[in-house]
Amino acid sequence: MAGKEPEIITDKNQMRKWSRTMRSKGKTIGLVPTMGYLHEGHISLVREAHNHTNLIVVSIYVNPGQFSTTEDLSTYPSDFDRDIQKLMAVPGGVDVVFHPYNLYDYGQRKPSGANNFGSSNDNCEKTICGDGGKVEKKEVVSCLEESGLGHETWVRVERLEKLLCGKSRPVFFRGVATVVTKLFNIVEPDVAVFGKKDYQQWRIIQRMVRDLDFSVEVIGSDIVRDNDGLAMSSRNVHLSPEEREKALSINKSLLRAKSAAEKGQVDCRELINLVIQAVDKAGGRIDYAEIIDQETLEAVEEISSPVVFSIAAWFGRVRLIDNMEISL
Amino acid sequence: MAGKEPEIITDKNQMRKWSRTMRSKGKTIGLVPTMGYLHEGHISLVREAHNHTNLIVVSIYVNPGQFSTTEDLSTYPSDFDRDIQKLMAVPGGVDVVFHPYNLYDYGQRKPSGANNFGSSNDNCEKTICGDGGKVEKKEVVSCLEESGLGHETWVRVERLEKLLCGKSRPVFFRGVATVVTKLFNIVEPDVAVFGKKDYQQWRIIQRMVRDLDFSVEVIGSDIVRDNDGLAMSSRNVHLSPEEREKALSINKSLLRAKSAAEKGQVDCRELINLVIQAVDKAGGRIDYAEIIDQETLEAVEEISSPVVFSIAAWFGRVRLIDNMEISL
Repeated sequence: MAGKEPEIITDKNQMRKWSRTMRSKGKTIGLVPTMGYLHEGHISLVREAHNHTNLIVVSIYVNPGQFSTTEDLSTYPSDFDRDIQKLMAVPGGVDVVFHPYNLYDYGQRKPSGANNFGSSNDNCEKTICGDGGKVEKKEVVSCLEESGLGHETWVRVERLEKLLCGKSRPVFFRGVATVVTKLFNIVEPDVAVFGKKDYQQWRIIQRMVRDLDFSVEVIGSDIVRDNDGLAMSSRNVHLSPEEREKALSINKSLLRAKSAAEKGQVDCRELINLVIQAVDKAGGRIDYAEIIDQETLEAVEEISSPVVFSIAAWFGRVRLIDNMEISL
Repeated sequence: MAGKEPEIITDKNQMRKWSRTMRSKGKTIGLVPTMGYLHEGHISLVREAHNHTNLIVVSIYVNPGQFSTTEDLSTYPSDFDRDIQKLMAVPGGVDVVFHPYNLYDYGQRKPSGANNFGSSNDNCEKTICGDGGKVEKKEVVSCLEESGLGHETWVRVERLEKLLCGKSRPVFFRGVATVVTKLFNIVEPDVAVFGKKDYQQWRIIQRMVRDLDFSVEVIGSDIVRDNDGLAMSSRNVHLSPEEREKALSINKSLLRAKSAAEKGQVDCRELINLVIQAVDKAGGRIDYAEIIDQETLEAVEEISSPVVFSIAAWFGRVRLIDNMEISL
């Protein structure tokens, strides 16, 4: 299955230079941002990108800025060589794999202002003291510590970032929006493709692009599922066979809810209970299950316009997310 | 004094198209972002820009996103025709004046999600309620209200934005970093020039550009003073003759502090007291007076590396800022 071998670029300036050279030749550039360990879901994004632009850049970078220090940064799976093989097998291939070592190394640290990326912080809580030295609040921080000359600029989609996954992952969308901004500024793409499995992420990036006037078209690409119905995710590899079997309750109950809605059950409370009970019975631990407006992501009580049923649940030590659009 | 007449562009897409056309011809573009009511300080930024690029864009836009609703958005002075005359008198002139009507109009509002830009909010505090409806905290918001489909993405330089002016103007630097991001994405300049009078703003933009990988070189341009020593500011027009006379105490005492430092007084507490007493005696009300590291903006106790003495003070209803770099 050997196909076109992508150019591998690790340097920011070299990446931007490549894009500018191509643009000066009249080419358009599509970006597919990933954290690697590619599966068929990622590949579908590359295929989608081929529908929009001449050239394709896939970025592979596990972004410490979107993990809190208690999350699974250190165990996030990776297999770069296999990723390249998979990309070579895509019809049309990809032109560049952008694979930076550290997007937050600005090469001008002071000893006191160390950027602790990669260090093993045991605790993700930073204590904030008021004038009197009294502890006023605790702030959750990411795996990038802010101090001295370290990274401290964050792009925040301040309403959307707090909903759904934002409740249990307070630094996640700040980190995603920031690294996507960096990638947009480095790769300067015409189009960027995101998976609708990460529905909130996709909507946040769309809103960010609109609000900050980025000249990038954001495409949402449909969820890809394994044959058993489980939405593809790099984290699925951590599920035991038993946990995987139990996790199928997510997709099954979402399908039942969608079917019930289509048959006239538009009371969201009823539909949500149906899913919660099914996942609960299978042994999953619900983080959230909400029916929300497709654009504002605000909860709705009754389905009267296009909505999405969005869910996050734990199976063992793995947190899975999934969703289903319902347009009656 | 008639010179080159600038092209006036009000539309975002037209602005970006102009820049891309010029870049494709090998031209470089300098941006001078302003809020209009131009004075010799702004003109010096345009002159500085001419040292770096072929073409100059001056943006004139009073940004509601950086004013809290209790601040002086409604009384901020403007005189567009005079601004154009002043720009035409600069040697070399400017190529484009980008003068958008509303940078936050995305043309897709829902009735419930009105973007209240321009409305007369009496109160800038938004009450945040917890699950039980109990008031948990009050949040200061800008003159752009976030709700529904309104603007909600903010670029935050999270440490630097809280220091100095950030203490009394909690939405200011969030608003500045955000509108500059928008301008960078619309104008796509090679170089942007900022005045060092707004020292913290200049450093925040530099940090933002580094942290978000913008491909823009940020130039800091020296403070321009009137003959009497007052740092030029659009807000000076609101000073009565008496207040203006009193306000000269800022520059005079900063010069005395610098001179004292050069003669060996490196104890910052002593130098700060000297300035506070002089401004206080003149009838000014100090907001802050700090001696800080030129890059991290962190307060220092003793001058042993390049610092800047940074001050904000009220004279009547006008808040002035000024600063002086001290490199022994």
